[in-house]
Amino acid sequence: MSFRIAVLPGDGIGPEIVEQAVRVLRALDLDLELTEAPVGGAAYAAHGHPLPESTLALARQSDAVLFGAVGDWKYDHLERALRPEQAVLGLRKALGLFANLRPAILYPELANASSLKPEVVAGLDILIVRELTGDIYFGQPRGVRTLEDGPFAGERQGYDTMHYAESEIRRIAHVAFQAAAGRQGRLCSVDKANVLETSQFWRDIMIDVAREYPKVELSHMYVDNAAMQLVREPKAFDVVVTGNLFGDILSDEAAMLTGSIGMLPSASLNASRQGLYEPSHGSAPDIAGQNVANPLATILSAAMMLRYSLDAAPAADRIEAAVQAVLAQGLRTADIHEAGTTRVSTIEMGDAVLKAL
Amino acid sequence: MSFRIAVLPGDGIGPEIVEQAVRVLRALDLDLELTEAPVGGAAYAAHGHPLPESTLALARQSDAVLFGAVGDWKYDHLERALRPEQAVLGLRKALGLFANLRPAILYPELANASSLKPEVVAGLDILIVRELTGDIYFGQPRGVRTLEDGPFAGERQGYDTMHYAESEIRRIAHVAFQAAAGRQGRLCSVDKANVLETSQFWRDIMIDVAREYPKVELSHMYVDNAAMQLVREPKAFDVVVTGNLFGDILSDEAAMLTGSIGMLPSASLNASRQGLYEPSHGSAPDIAGQNVANPLATILSAAMMLRYSLDAAPAADRIEAAVQAVLAQGLRTADIHEAGTTRVSTIEMGDAVLKAL
Ligand SMILES: CC(C)[C@H](C(=O)O)[C@@H](O)C(=O)O
Ligand SMILES: CC(C)[C@H](C(=O)O)[C@@H](O)C(=O)O
Repeated sequence: MSFRIAVLPGDGIGPEIVEQAVRVLRALDLDLELTEAPVGGAAYAAHGHPLPESTLALARQSDAVLFGAVGDWKYDHLERALRPEQAVLGLRKALGLFANLRPAILYPELANASSLKPEVVAGLDILIVRELTGDIYFGQPRGVRTLEDGPFAGERQGYDTMHYAESEIRRIAHVAFQAAAGRQGRLCSVDKANVLETSQFWRDIMIDVAREYPKVELSHMYVDNAAMQLVREPKAFDVVVTGNLFGDILSDEAAMLTGSIGMLPSASLNASRQGLYEPSHGSAPDIAGQNVANPLATILSAAMMLRYSLDAAPAADRIEAAVQAVLAQGLRTADIHEAGTTRVSTIEMGDAVLKAL
Repeated sequence: MSFRIAVLPGDGIGPEIVEQAVRVLRALDLDLELTEAPVGGAAYAAHGHPLPESTLALARQSDAVLFGAVGDWKYDHLERALRPEQAVLGLRKALGLFANLRPAILYPELANASSLKPEVVAGLDILIVRELTGDIYFGQPRGVRTLEDGPFAGERQGYDTMHYAESEIRRIAHVAFQAAAGRQGRLCSVDKANVLETSQFWRDIMIDVAREYPKVELSHMYVDNAAMQLVREPKAFDVVVTGNLFGDILSDEAAMLTGSIGMLPSASLNASRQGLYEPSHGSAPDIAGQNVANPLATILSAAMMLRYSLDAAPAADRIEAAVQAVLAQGLRTADIHEAGTTRVSTIEMGDAVLKAL
């Protein structure tokens, strides 16, 4: 079987980390057709838009998208619709990538990298399932208006709409319950049902879907409490499912618990298992082009791509084992380097993974 | 001068911790008229409503409210409008308590209590300024509706409205800039301006207000990044200002960084400096009535009350010094107890603070 993969390197360190992931993919014995296209600030610079039509068309036609990172201070002055991160939102919406899977895993070798005590995080293995195409991210109406009456009559007001339709909640619930069933069987749904109607509705549907998964233990937690418990006792979580906005916040918090966000991949999937795969970290323009960035999150994102979109779990296993091996060899890029380990460049890390494959 | 204080103990450990704070207040040489009233689940049990009219009237007539905590599993089955936490929302709205001040301070003696490495959190001293009467908490319209058209036509949808009017943002901005001016002069405004219209509007107003505070350095951070940076390097923050929803999440996350949430007070103020003062922790029904809860957060909330609403800073200083003294003496309630310190009960801790006054 042959697969088409859109390769979108983006900005900052995007190109150099994606290059290493592409090398790893090409080294596998698979029939992959890789096509590169511009995205983010780089695409704006070249084509006047962060998500050019040609890039979007390529992504649509592909089985999967391997994405680097977007964003650079250079583009901060642009109006919002032209800023690099709009490419991310545009791709999610256009491809219907509603299910974002964000593992927060702490490799034993990297326990010191965390700002948390080793005993609190060693062996951490959480999966955050974030809904990615609904919620307040895309809700209408939204904007700035002048109020006609009420206590603030005559004033301008910024406003947005949070909402979830029943089937949007059901489909992400199924993804999360299935993920939990394949892990420790514990799913924590995070909401703010004590305040938000959207959240109470979300909770009701979660409870309903739970009846189809009797072996998965469903619990509920308010988002403020979840933000606390992630700090207090992160290992108490197995799978967390939550909406787009809360998921944005909690998945980043969970990632940072590991102290090694340069290691964390992510997958964003649609109903036909087409997916976008990208590292959990950003474009880090301050270190771009210096051959120091950590390519492992992107390489592990390629592994997720093989597993979820290309049905090539054995190849994914090979990559993940190779990453484990280079860590065991003591090889570290600057972001995870510590005394007693060997500091390597982006390319050297790619070389090492290739060798370990 | 004489001051009227409404004392609302609430549920769980509320009554026993408030009792100790009341003892401390009475021991001061001030003319305080303290009147107790039911709130939360206790009020529902006695009067059929978590915030009875008489309690609300008392709060309105008082210079300040000393609040314990509300909530108990017993009331989980009630419809939302009758649940204990509605009392909190009702008081905030009725009294116009728009400015929530939540310090996250780690006392040097308690550095071990944190799940973070001591060097990351020792000496932590952040102030979170959370807007408390606007945002998606109270925004209309909200509810559950059946969609008439669009991709989810025929389905039910839960929805809420996030919004901020210009003057709502301005008044919390002034509180935050003034707080920052009295501290290290650094204010970080947290929003999600790359996605939300409300946030972009919030950011624009913050920038405008900043012109009146040339000595305060204003920065902006996206909420997902803030959730990360609080874990990575919390001491980099001085004052954080944010909306109601993001503030709910981040202030709890920041509190938990200290590992000693039983030590953290909070103040919620309106435009005439009337305020509600309560510990940052919850009602902990599992340990209620056992004389083991930590009363220090409530005692420190009483100190905040003296400082902000009663213009009695010297008395506030006395209380805070007394709390420092009992910690230095090695006295600890169960929540913060560790080897080499003396474990004391709720009442014993109150005794010790009274003695140290
Ligand atoms: C860039 C931004 C719009 C995006 C989001 O908020 O979803 C990012 O924070 C993420 O989590 O992928
Ligand atoms: C009880 C709840 C409504 C409340 C809130 O969300 O504001 C609480 O979490 C808080 O932070 O005081």
